[in-house]
Amino acid sequence: MAVSTVYTVQSLNSTCSISTPSKPFSQKHILFFTTTKRALTRSCRQISCSAEDKTVVIGLAADSGCGKSTFMRRLTSVFGGAAEPPRGGNPDSNTLISDTTTVICLDDYHSLDRTGRKEKGVTALDPKANDFDLMYEQVKALKDGAAVDKPIYNHVSGLLDPPELIKPPKILVIEGLHPMYDERVRHLLDFSIYLDISNEVKFAWKIQRDMAERGHSLESIKASIEARKPDFDAYIDPQKQYADAVIEVLPTQLIPDDNEGKVLRVRLIMKEGVKFFNPVYLFDEGSTIEWIPCGRKLTCSYPGIKFSYGPDTYYGHEVSVLEMDGQFDRLDELIYVESHLSNLSTKFYGEVTQQMLKHSDFPGSNNGTGLFQTIVGLKIRDLFEQIVVSRTAAALEAAKA
Amino acid sequence: MAVSTVYTVQSLNSTCSISTPSKPFSQKHILFFTTTKRALTRSCRQISCSAEDKTVVIGLAADSGCGKSTFMRRLTSVFGGAAEPPRGGNPDSNTLISDTTTVICLDDYHSLDRTGRKEKGVTALDPKANDFDLMYEQVKALKDGAAVDKPIYNHVSGLLDPPELIKPPKILVIEGLHPMYDERVRHLLDFSIYLDISNEVKFAWKIQRDMAERGHSLESIKASIEARKPDFDAYIDPQKQYADAVIEVLPTQLIPDDNEGKVLRVRLIMKEGVKFFNPVYLFDEGSTIEWIPCGRKLTCSYPGIKFSYGPDTYYGHEVSVLEMDGQFDRLDELIYVESHLSNLSTKFYGEVTQQMLKHSDFPGSNNGTGLFQTIVGLKIRDLFEQIVVSRTAAALEAAKA
Repeated sequence: MAVSTVYTVQSLNSTCSISTPSKPFSQKHILFFTTTKRALTRSCRQISCSAEDKTVVIGLAADSGCGKSTFMRRLTSVFGGAAEPPRGGNPDSNTLISDTTTVICLDDYHSLDRTGRKEKGVTALDPKANDFDLMYEQVKALKDGAAVDKPIYNHVSGLLDPPELIKPPKILVIEGLHPMYDERVRHLLDFSIYLDISNEVKFAWKIQRDMAERGHSLESIKASIEARKPDFDAYIDPQKQYADAVIEVLPTQLIPDDNEGKVLRVRLIMKEGVKFFNPVYLFDEGSTIEWIPCGRKLTCSYPGIKFSYGPDTYYGHEVSVLEMDGQFDRLDELIYVESHLSNLSTKFYGEVTQQMLKHSDFPGSNNGTGLFQTIVGLKIRDLFEQIVVSRTAAALEAAKA
Repeated sequence: MAVSTVYTVQSLNSTCSISTPSKPFSQKHILFFTTTKRALTRSCRQISCSAEDKTVVIGLAADSGCGKSTFMRRLTSVFGGAAEPPRGGNPDSNTLISDTTTVICLDDYHSLDRTGRKEKGVTALDPKANDFDLMYEQVKALKDGAAVDKPIYNHVSGLLDPPELIKPPKILVIEGLHPMYDERVRHLLDFSIYLDISNEVKFAWKIQRDMAERGHSLESIKASIEARKPDFDAYIDPQKQYADAVIEVLPTQLIPDDNEGKVLRVRLIMKEGVKFFNPVYLFDEGSTIEWIPCGRKLTCSYPGIKFSYGPDTYYGHEVSVLEMDGQFDRLDELIYVESHLSNLSTKFYGEVTQQMLKHSDFPGSNNGTGLFQTIVGLKIRDLFEQIVVSRTAAALEAAKA
């Protein structure tokens, strides 16, 4: 399964620092990407990386064309600052870097390029077309505070381009088809999200994009979806059982027999008992609620808006599910909805609404996809901050002892 | 329609007092029940009844055997003190008197006794069997602060007994078949309630009482209900359009095809825009909500509990509807439900639960009938207090001028 990949030996700037919190300074160190996991880990420990500097790793799984990039833009926005590709690097880089977060695309761990996949008759969804050993080694290295030279899969040419340098960020997001597929990689994740777009919606979206915008025929779109389905069902879909949060995108139930896929029913499925993650709730934690906010205070046009909330089980796990069906007429009225949600991990009253208004041009801003992506972004910021606090406290304890 | 009724001329103690708030004292005055409305009113004004002493009048309409007496016991309990029949009076009196409230039964205004009704072929539901002129005169007199000599309809003998003295209380509740039937009486009401028991539930209750407890046959029960129905539909049911609050009692929707009538779905329909009455709401005023409180915090056995809340229209009026389907397993857990209801007009946290626990032996204490009767009791107390405050303020204004 492991196929030759491009990696180099380089001298890098790492964010690892000597653990004297008052005088942190950067420390050059050399990373050998051919070293074993143990050696990589040791390289960081030897120079006393402070625990609180350890990278927090988030996994985001979804099929391609399912809004991962919008999600990532919402996430990085929560932390402030814009996300950009590495400066002066490959213009076709899939990486997005902001002050706090680095988002890497797991397509970069394709072990087979487009031609290679064609020759072997495998899709990009097939684990055989991906190098999980390298994915694991590099994510582990970044988590431990060491920089890596990550390959680039060029989506334009379909080729594997020379690698780019990725320094360990505060938060590393690995997004793509398989962040939870490999058990070793999965165990590196501090939090994991699965974007679950139902077949009906996926189909409607593809029609919109490939037929209306790219002139493909309905038959060819159907055929392409059908061709991907077996591998998707075998390798991608099963990952959702491991996710701490799942965003499910379904057709609306407010319009009988709707198949336009424009009005969406979106469900945020939040696993209970995840450390540093307290599920959002509506009105009353742990009970079951349906709420139509339209009425005397919020005016909605057809088909209105309906929220649901309640406990459930998902792949044997206890979860809380928050659902929004329908769409907002006026985004500034979202504050009314926001004020009735609890455990949002906002830093000030109205932060969700502010974030949504800031990016009102992003797809899904008037429905549950945008709302729940924003909320998950806030929960990740909160999780990150809790992890840092907890590590600092542990480090202080250790220093005292 | 007006038939001969029993009334006497008596010298009475009235609660009317000279309007010097620091030194109120009782004032004897004579009431002539044959006087006109104008004369009765003047009799009170002449001795300067203070406005805040004016009796607040509440109307409660319902068919017989529909829980009016339980409701009245819950209502008087809210004001503190027990309600008892007039001391030393007719043991078959229908009146209940407590410190604050006097509840009179409108059956006392039957103009035809049982034999008379049989002879004329009319039911007690028929306006022809009731003296609305006297009802109006006496309720008006009591409202204006004058005592009356009210007839007594003896439910045991079916005869009209000699009258009993009713002094003007702080709150007068007129309960029975026709409190909102006569327009003049209706306009005397400061607040009106209609207990609306659905035919299915009424039937189940009659079966329980008349078949199980009194040995009647199913056929005779059906026949008796059918016989009452035309008059009920013609004269009683239409009153609900005038009610400020309606308590609707329906079969549960939690058990498919239930016809036992044991688990109830109860709806509290509250008219909007009624002075001194702010409808209760669940979570978010004016929106539409369904809430199943059973879950992580409240354990419910089958079939559980479901609350609903939302705006609606009722006979062309804008209303808010609060609904409870199902029943409580443990009444002390009601505090959990109470804490999520707003505008309850309680005087302290948990007062609804305390009232319900105090009378846990009353029928309907584990379901919406008891809960909503208690809530309506609290709303009436609040309405009464607001009226008193408003009248006192008006009196002070008038004194200043």
